[in-house]
Amino acid sequence: MPKVTIAQNILAANETIAQEIRQALTAHGLRTINIMSSPGAGKTTLLERTIERLRGQLSIGVIEGDIETTADAERIEAAGAETVQINTRGACHLEAHMIRAALKEIDLARVSLLFIENIGNLVCPSAWDLGEDIRVVVISTTEGDDKPAKYPQIFASSQIMVVNKLDLLPYIDFDLEKAKRQALAINPRLRIFEVSCRTGMGLDNWCEWLLAFADDKIS
Amino acid sequence: MPKVTIAQNILAANETIAQEIRQALTAHGLRTINIMSSPGAGKTTLLERTIERLRGQLSIGVIEGDIETTADAERIEAAGAETVQINTRGACHLEAHMIRAALKEIDLARVSLLFIENIGNLVCPSAWDLGEDIRVVVISTTEGDDKPAKYPQIFASSQIMVVNKLDLLPYIDFDLEKAKRQALAINPRLRIFEVSCRTGMGLDNWCEWLLAFADDKIS
Repeated sequence: MPKVTIAQNILAANETIAQEIRQALTAHGLRTINIMSSPGAGKTTLLERTIERLRGQLSIGVIEGDIETTADAERIEAAGAETVQINTRGACHLEAHMIRAALKEIDLARVSLLFIENIGNLVCPSAWDLGEDIRVVVISTTEGDDKPAKYPQIFASSQIMVVNKLDLLPYIDFDLEKAKRQALAINPRLRIFEVSCRTGMGLDNWCEWLLAFADDKIS
Repeated sequence: MPKVTIAQNILAANETIAQEIRQALTAHGLRTINIMSSPGAGKTTLLERTIERLRGQLSIGVIEGDIETTADAERIEAAGAETVQINTRGACHLEAHMIRAALKEIDLARVSLLFIENIGNLVCPSAWDLGEDIRVVVISTTEGDDKPAKYPQIFASSQIMVVNKLDLLPYIDFDLEKAKRQALAINPRLRIFEVSCRTGMGLDNWCEWLLAFADDKIS
């Protein structure tokens, strides 16, 4: 089974680098969040709104993963965060060695909370440890309420689920309770935030939680 | 470079099986469409509406790819199509050998148009030839108008782009012309259909095109 062995070796090598990253970031007193979702669920917009709201309270850094383009990094930088772009040139997820390289471009002493925005993909990123403290999976109401059941691994491996685009609920068929029930059946410890990045609904709760998390009061 | 060599060998083996599938389906006079999108863009709903509208005119078969669950296959079967489920158990895309196995479960003499619904993923499926005649990429307005530029490979390798959820345009920021312009910059030969599976808008054009395609009048 050479294919399986090689895949295991690649993941084991990734895990080693991820642990080194985790130790280094912890030594800097820095907490790190790996944020994952389908394409277009609203990761970048959530980060923009978060950075704007926490300006002056928290110094946020962002490692921005994209297959192509620097469009998201430009949006994040405009919102006021220290930003490093990773272009994967076709690859469907971030890996720990990419984070290690990106961290050399960030002045860690100036950052108190680090976000890693993964590639838009609800499958592959969940297999790759990036050295983060916690994982956030974002789903949007327009994707349908069956996503936790259909893509369980990313919900199983996350600590937080953010449900975005709640402002669109009147115009679509999305059973919020069903989506939450499915997600909690996969991962009973999942903490859930319900937000609309468009209207600002729910963002206060999310930002309060982030402040406490960055401050290490909760884990 | 052992990693690269092995990846090339796997893709070459996939290509061989895909060509065998293509020849076998063509020999049956059957046309095949590989349909791809992000999670929740509306692939399954598009197929449901298509099967309902073409009932009595076209005998549609569907190979339904999912990581877990048989929920989509049940929806497609209820809509009236011959359906075979593939569960990839974690894998992020379909491969030709999965299609070869699934085809054994379908009475090809009873089908005149075959859809393969790929895993919800805007990255990985584009690298895997499944023996299809054409590829359709579905994007939904709620994903944002930057998706062609950010995920170019799937648009470069498709012949058709379906833009779904046009009924939600009044409630979101989505520049339809920008999305089309970006997609056509990547792939100038892309044919574009604008639809709402919820209201039925645009589905007549799509179904007319499918009828002609299945009838081999266009390619």
